[in-house]
Amino acid sequence: MLADIQSWGETLRLLVELAGTAAFALSGLLEAARKRLDAVGVCVVACVTAFGGGTLRDLLLDRRPFFWVQHVELLWGVMALCVLVMLFMRQRHFEVTEKAIQWPDALGLGLFTATGVHLALNEQMPILVAVLMGVTTGVFGGVLRDVVCNEVPTAFRDHRPYAVCAFAGGWIYAGLGLLDAPGWVALVACVAVTAGLRLMALWRNWELPAWRV
Amino acid sequence: MLADIQSWGETLRLLVELAGTAAFALSGLLEAARKRLDAVGVCVVACVTAFGGGTLRDLLLDRRPFFWVQHVELLWGVMALCVLVMLFMRQRHFEVTEKAIQWPDALGLGLFTATGVHLALNEQMPILVAVLMGVTTGVFGGVLRDVVCNEVPTAFRDHRPYAVCAFAGGWIYAGLGLLDAPGWVALVACVAVTAGLRLMALWRNWELPAWRV
Amino acid sequence: MLADIQSWGETLRLLVELAGTAAFALSGLLEAARKRLDAVGVCVVACVTAFGGGTLRDLLLDRRPFFWVQHVELLWGVMALCVLVMLFMRQRHFEVTEKAIQWPDALGLGLFTATGVHLALNEQMPILVAVLMGVTTGVFGGVLRDVVCNEVPTAFRDHRPYAVCAFAGGWIYAGLGLLDAPGWVALVACVAVTAGLRLMALWRNWELPAWRV
Repeated sequence: MLADIQSWGETLRLLVELAGTAAFALSGLLEAARKRLDAVGVCVVACVTAFGGGTLRDLLLDRRPFFWVQHVELLWGVMALCVLVMLFMRQRHFEVTEKAIQWPDALGLGLFTATGVHLALNEQMPILVAVLMGVTTGVFGGVLRDVVCNEVPTAFRDHRPYAVCAFAGGWIYAGLGLLDAPGWVALVACVAVTAGLRLMALWRNWELPAWRV
Repeated sequence: MLADIQSWGETLRLLVELAGTAAFALSGLLEAARKRLDAVGVCVVACVTAFGGGTLRDLLLDRRPFFWVQHVELLWGVMALCVLVMLFMRQRHFEVTEKAIQWPDALGLGLFTATGVHLALNEQMPILVAVLMGVTTGVFGGVLRDVVCNEVPTAFRDHRPYAVCAFAGGWIYAGLGLLDAPGWVALVACVAVTAGLRLMALWRNWELPAWRV
Repeated sequence: MLADIQSWGETLRLLVELAGTAAFALSGLLEAARKRLDAVGVCVVACVTAFGGGTLRDLLLDRRPFFWVQHVELLWGVMALCVLVMLFMRQRHFEVTEKAIQWPDALGLGLFTATGVHLALNEQMPILVAVLMGVTTGVFGGVLRDVVCNEVPTAFRDHRPYAVCAFAGGWIYAGLGLLDAPGWVALVACVAVTAGLRLMALWRNWELPAWRV
């Protein structure tokens, strides 16, 4: 019975991870298409967006092998996704896709943040560093996408809360960890807070405080 | 007799490596000059273009020392090249240079790709990852050059096959490796396929399939 | 008595390090504000500018933990600085700030360069690589700041000597190290040469030699 629940939980976690990775890859695909990149550029930008945040985290924490080396099927999956999308998607589907990926993107942001905090705490990082590693995992894929596409990163510019949602969720995860809460409680709380804040922000049009010029 | 051939082969490999490094550095010099960078910028962009791909590969594979630390004379060479070019080259030589470096650039692309695949396979990477490491070695010097010069990377945008040639050559190298072919056969085949495809693409004006908008 | 002088020297070094870090962070803040980034962007760009150079050096030398993990209070400090500046600084203070940070920026450049050369020599790097690591430590925070803000890096473009001052200072440090001079002599000489050249360059409007087009 308990084993059943655990395996259900594990399956659910895997589904969120796949959905999040696909959402990140798709956001890279859309940006690459908007910039009129060629087929190579589209694939690279999609991979960078999907795997960039976790790779930067692993580089900074000096963890090897990278997660996309251990699970090389993720790489194959994103490349297959690129080919399918390039064959079948048309311009007028862009807006639809952008709306459609908001949910998996928010859930993925929460999950990747929790993963980043978890791995950093495992390496005995100070708590602030661990939370920032979580944010990096969730956010820097998009930052690298924008840098490669020669844009100021959306995450730093559009006044929509994104990184701050991950920041809040990261503190929740780290705090519950300090209180010795079971791992799945911290994970669920982190995803719920991060994704909840993000979706609320999109729904209610919350804006980040502006610089008082 | 056999030793003679081996030492000839080794000399040839070294010549291609030097020519490729110089071609990469020159492409960085030209872009930096076009962007009107100062002397510091010209040197940095040339070094980034020449060494960026291999450095990123070594970072991702966690290899130390870097090849430009082991062979620090390469660094001295590129810096001397920068000074000479800045002293003696004029604007009207730019187009000549661009044509002139197509051959060494294509050969270098092939050789660097083979090196990348080889090193990654040595570290037990999955074959797809190894091939992508080869492509990274050959292509990311130019990508970093364009990012530093604030351009969308040419390799992702100009619809000319470049990374895909390296990708094809990389699979050839890895495939021949799996079939236990001798190292030099795999190397020659990889360089021939990569450089051959690249030069054919330039000659026949091949274009990458475009996104069907 | 000698212990007194040593502890004074150590305090002075710490003060220069804090002033340099603050100056780097402020230059990131100003650029982020000019680009109208949101609060998240401002904090990230300030941190990247303050810690980017040293982090890149540590990545290349494969040193862990990063200095901002060992001294996590630096991270807290820069984030507090960002909040304070966002609350209290107005546009008209930008020019004042830019003038005001020239001195601590130049001193920080010297100190960070010396630190980079020192750490690289400790890892048995060749002397040219060690000097370049020193330059990287001092200069690449600003380069990353400009890349993230989607500008061609100022250090490569404005014809004002900046990296060359660090380059000169780095050779001084490495040279004195080879001559077995005491560490503090090399440190003081490096900071004096780097900061002195930089401030002279600003004062006398020195320009880098231009490309002869």
